[in-house]
Amino acid sequence: MLKSSTALDDRRSHEETRRRNLGALLRHVHLGGPMSRAVLTERMGVNRSTIMGLTAELVSAGLVYEELPAETGKAGRPSLVVRPASDRVYVLAFDVAVDRLVAARVALGGTILDRREAVRLRAGVDLETVAGVLGEFGRRLYEAAPSEAVCVGVGASYCGMIRRADGMVRFGPDLGWVDQAFGPELGRQLPLDLPVLVGNEAHLGALAEHVRGAGIAVQNLIYLHGDVGVGGGIIVGGDLLDGHGGYGSELGHMLVNPHNGRPCGCGSYGCLEAEVGERALLDAAGRPPELTGRDAVRAVVDAAAHGDAVAQDALRCVGDWLGIGVANLINLFNPGMVIFGGMLREIYLGSAAHVRTRITANVLAVSREEVQLRISALGDDATLIGAAELAFSELLANPSKYRLT
Amino acid sequence: MLKSSTALDDRRSHEETRRRNLGALLRHVHLGGPMSRAVLTERMGVNRSTIMGLTAELVSAGLVYEELPAETGKAGRPSLVVRPASDRVYVLAFDVAVDRLVAARVALGGTILDRREAVRLRAGVDLETVAGVLGEFGRRLYEAAPSEAVCVGVGASYCGMIRRADGMVRFGPDLGWVDQAFGPELGRQLPLDLPVLVGNEAHLGALAEHVRGAGIAVQNLIYLHGDVGVGGGIIVGGDLLDGHGGYGSELGHMLVNPHNGRPCGCGSYGCLEAEVGERALLDAAGRPPELTGRDAVRAVVDAAAHGDAVAQDALRCVGDWLGIGVANLINLFNPGMVIFGGMLREIYLGSAAHVRTRITANVLAVSREEVQLRISALGDDATLIGAAELAFSELLANPSKYRLT
Repeated sequence: MLKSSTALDDRRSHEETRRRNLGALLRHVHLGGPMSRAVLTERMGVNRSTIMGLTAELVSAGLVYEELPAETGKAGRPSLVVRPASDRVYVLAFDVAVDRLVAARVALGGTILDRREAVRLRAGVDLETVAGVLGEFGRRLYEAAPSEAVCVGVGASYCGMIRRADGMVRFGPDLGWVDQAFGPELGRQLPLDLPVLVGNEAHLGALAEHVRGAGIAVQNLIYLHGDVGVGGGIIVGGDLLDGHGGYGSELGHMLVNPHNGRPCGCGSYGCLEAEVGERALLDAAGRPPELTGRDAVRAVVDAAAHGDAVAQDALRCVGDWLGIGVANLINLFNPGMVIFGGMLREIYLGSAAHVRTRITANVLAVSREEVQLRISALGDDATLIGAAELAFSELLANPSKYRLT
Repeated sequence: MLKSSTALDDRRSHEETRRRNLGALLRHVHLGGPMSRAVLTERMGVNRSTIMGLTAELVSAGLVYEELPAETGKAGRPSLVVRPASDRVYVLAFDVAVDRLVAARVALGGTILDRREAVRLRAGVDLETVAGVLGEFGRRLYEAAPSEAVCVGVGASYCGMIRRADGMVRFGPDLGWVDQAFGPELGRQLPLDLPVLVGNEAHLGALAEHVRGAGIAVQNLIYLHGDVGVGGGIIVGGDLLDGHGGYGSELGHMLVNPHNGRPCGCGSYGCLEAEVGERALLDAAGRPPELTGRDAVRAVVDAAAHGDAVAQDALRCVGDWLGIGVANLINLFNPGMVIFGGMLREIYLGSAAHVRTRITANVLAVSREEVQLRISALGDDATLIGAAELAFSELLANPSKYRLT
């Protein structure tokens, strides 16, 4: 009896290892594209025969294909190529940003196959309206998919603080939402028996940049996302910093200007978001209050580049606050990379010198000696792509639960 | 051939699992004390027979004992108790703080068995002197150990920035050290063929509070360590945040006062360390510059408690800056707990109301709803205990490499 229960632990640990390896293999081709068995063998550090067995299981589940590679020019039997079943396996991804609503069908492998987009209807728009518009988009994307294609997950990015346990929007200041069950409501609008996984937009932007963007293979990175506010997603040792309840990485509410700070949407004054957000730049550049949005921000950066002194001063001021915020973050996190995304791409490009000056002045030399500063590689789609990755997460964690054939 | 190489992967994964389980079991009794097989079975989530096998291996390596429990009062055969071999297995731990040098012999299980301590000789003391004093302490501790006891590791805590790769002191402003190979130098002084693992004092304080102090089972916590400066150790998802090169968690150089900040040892102005460190409090309380050290800090806190208005104002001012720093950290990390250690225990106890006021004003409600504020449970020994845990880390990662019988 004792022997057999040890055997039970052994079998459980064997199954656990196999599940982890299956997920790892699928993740490699999902993120890296078609890949030979030889390359997979090397990257995963297991034997060829193990790769063969894992691939066979994924092929039989309908998740990957195996095929002969294009002519290699090398002698000998070529290594078979493993390709994700991008024509059959997809997720639905949604993005609720302050200035737009987006829905997309995204293939295993990461290609955006189809998308629907609307500018946001009005400020203060409610849960039912947002879920209604996105639900309609989702149904149309689903109906337009080939009949043999299978949706394996649904993910949504939201510009607010999301409870990790159930995806509840706890606080969404831009739309004025408090404790709204966005995921379940969107789920009810879709003809799918799948949970809607919800994440904070900057968290998902960070994940997307980490797996498909500027920060591939950077295990410690900081992603700053500018929308109307400023959010953050921080990757620590390869994992998202989401903290005790899921609300971590809120770098926009770091107090940088305690003496005469601008009012912030959170009710405080002098937060990083208040000093470097869209409104801070537009006010500093003397733009009228009714002018908002990314085009207005771009216009200030363009004007500065063409010699407009007022616009240059505005960027110097905002860049200095941004530099203080980033300097604090580098001291705290000793990251390999800092990525500016959303509207902060423009602001960073227009104020990089001021940001760097602050970093040199305020960061310990040892902590900044290897840090790289970059703009988002995924641009406006970073948050949407992050939502798609969230939607794929359950499949990648345990592919053997899925059998699409 | 294919079959046998799959079998090779299987065996490797089996051995990996066994090594992990061996380490986990030893860690349970090292941190939790003597524990019955039944409790271990439950905590580790494996079968009784697996626990039996793992325990037998650790017994035969000389790392634990198995014995009958004291009378339980319950009927039936009692579950054997597994006890760490604290009389035979120990590490040497060293602590280089600004105001003292400490060395200790620490048993498996965490008990400090023997210690030597010196006040620091003088400011600007050099590597050879520090390594010489500590080496002498270490030799005496080693010689005083019972002849059957075995030293399995050496760890050291240092008040400066330590390169993860090799334990080099990159920057130790308090002693004026730059790029000093402290670990190797101390190792040369000891009659042991073991590497000296070196960590930053606040990192090690955080680890110690996480495994043996105020933050047991808290997976996301922030430890602030006040010495002459202010350091930090931040635990994210159970792991220390040490960043790209090992320099993470440097919360003392967060810029909190950009307008008229006090000069900081790092060359900048207005860092958290400059506004809440020992000197900030003593200056604000009107104490003369020659008065330094923890007793002087305690005197200010005591005076405030007895109604001294100047001391009260000093604590209000320092508490407000400390509150700003802590508020920023809570927004960023959404921790379950914030722990004040070293000299910041006294300062926090004297200014808790001001710190809490800032947290309420500046932290998003959702991020602070579950955070606890605590003082260090390990007191002045937190960093020394952290150094001992660092010294035990290799044994706990792979007990099967050790065979002491």
